[in-house]
Amino acid sequence: MNVLIVHAHNEPGSFCTSMMKAATQELRAQGHEVDVSDLYAMQWKAVADAADFGSRANADYLVYALEQRHGWEAKTLAQDILAEVEKLQRADLVIFNFPIYWFSMPAILKGWVDRVLISGLCYGGMRFYDRGGLKGKKAMLAITIGGQPHMLCEDGIHGELQEMLRPILRGTLGYTGMTVLPPFVAWHVPYIQPGQRGELMEQYRQRLRQIDALQPLRFPSMDHFDAALRPRPAAAPW
Amino acid sequence: MNVLIVHAHNEPGSFCTSMMKAATQELRAQGHEVDVSDLYAMQWKAVADAADFGSRANADYLVYALEQRHGWEAKTLAQDILAEVEKLQRADLVIFNFPIYWFSMPAILKGWVDRVLISGLCYGGMRFYDRGGLKGKKAMLAITIGGQPHMLCEDGIHGELQEMLRPILRGTLGYTGMTVLPPFVAWHVPYIQPGQRGELMEQYRQRLRQIDALQPLRFPSMDHFDAALRPRPAAAPW
Repeated sequence: MNVLIVHAHNEPGSFCTSMMKAATQELRAQGHEVDVSDLYAMQWKAVADAADFGSRANADYLVYALEQRHGWEAKTLAQDILAEVEKLQRADLVIFNFPIYWFSMPAILKGWVDRVLISGLCYGGMRFYDRGGLKGKKAMLAITIGGQPHMLCEDGIHGELQEMLRPILRGTLGYTGMTVLPPFVAWHVPYIQPGQRGELMEQYRQRLRQIDALQPLRFPSMDHFDAALRPRPAAAPW
Repeated sequence: MNVLIVHAHNEPGSFCTSMMKAATQELRAQGHEVDVSDLYAMQWKAVADAADFGSRANADYLVYALEQRHGWEAKTLAQDILAEVEKLQRADLVIFNFPIYWFSMPAILKGWVDRVLISGLCYGGMRFYDRGGLKGKKAMLAITIGGQPHMLCEDGIHGELQEMLRPILRGTLGYTGMTVLPPFVAWHVPYIQPGQRGELMEQYRQRLRQIDALQPLRFPSMDHFDAALRPRPAAAPW
């Protein structure tokens, strides 16, 4: 497999950064090719704006998604975006490795999503979910979080973690057609002892040895919706 | 009221930007004070990193939230953060005005959340939800989205919009103790006719005249959880 790890932590000595390094080593030892996009180290530009386009379909009025489509066809997207798109196209598995900020991605990683998952290639023209442009690729989140499992479950104070991650798991990765594996969650990381960190890291390595056996999350099928995206009455629930 | 509008659109001529302008005018006409943070115009720095801190509690190892707390107490946070924190503290109502990108905020706005909602002031030490640091303030999303209501409801292809917005509504605004009003949603904006846009804008103005009458969203109360954040057995469901 070709694996792309998109990593977003602002402390090179963090447990999260160590997870990225451990995954790189573990996956290479398994014989996979591994690319890493270390967004802080790359000083990744997070902001989606007009500077992302070398030529414009409409120079007077910016519709970001339309310019993505145009820039992709005309090959005039900014060089940093094109380099990431190439890595993405090569990847069979994309791992997003990051600390949870506000039950979501740090802005620098959201900026990777906004700028790299380009309209035209990754989705567009009724190509999403099981018809998405990235169909055939797998995606997995590898996250660190301050909370504990009892805070992010059905009767927990924040509700289920996967519900908090819904715009990422379903609305982003599932939407583009990727096969979304269950997130690997390193719980309570800022508060645990070094020995517990070692155990967590070993659990992560174990997870990386079992990628093929993981049961993906389930999302809607376009077959269950009509051309106006209304549910087909006869369709079985997805 | 003092109102802060945090606005994040990369096209000054967009409907979304017009919503920000209409809200500014409408609210001022009602006698309110209005501050606007136009993040693209300000070239807001989206990325949460070491440069945000003039002095460090730990210069060797960056824990962003701990440095926020330290920087807030020591008054050494970056000047752009402090300016926004001041606006936030002054505000009785914060309106987040943005286009939905990937069922979430554009990265530039996520970077406002990551950098401005500082630990120590907005949350921390068991102060969240109804004990959050921003208790007493109201928050409302004013969003534009390409989809239509039938795509973002219970049996819609993407499920309910409010479930997609959960990390923002509950995990961010509710978490900091703000009273979260129902989002104002401008549906299908890229695809509608100018006349329909006019109607939408009038609906938004109407909404802004009824702020006081809106029923806020409901989130957990800390009273229902113990010191380890486990549900109290006797507590009524929130």
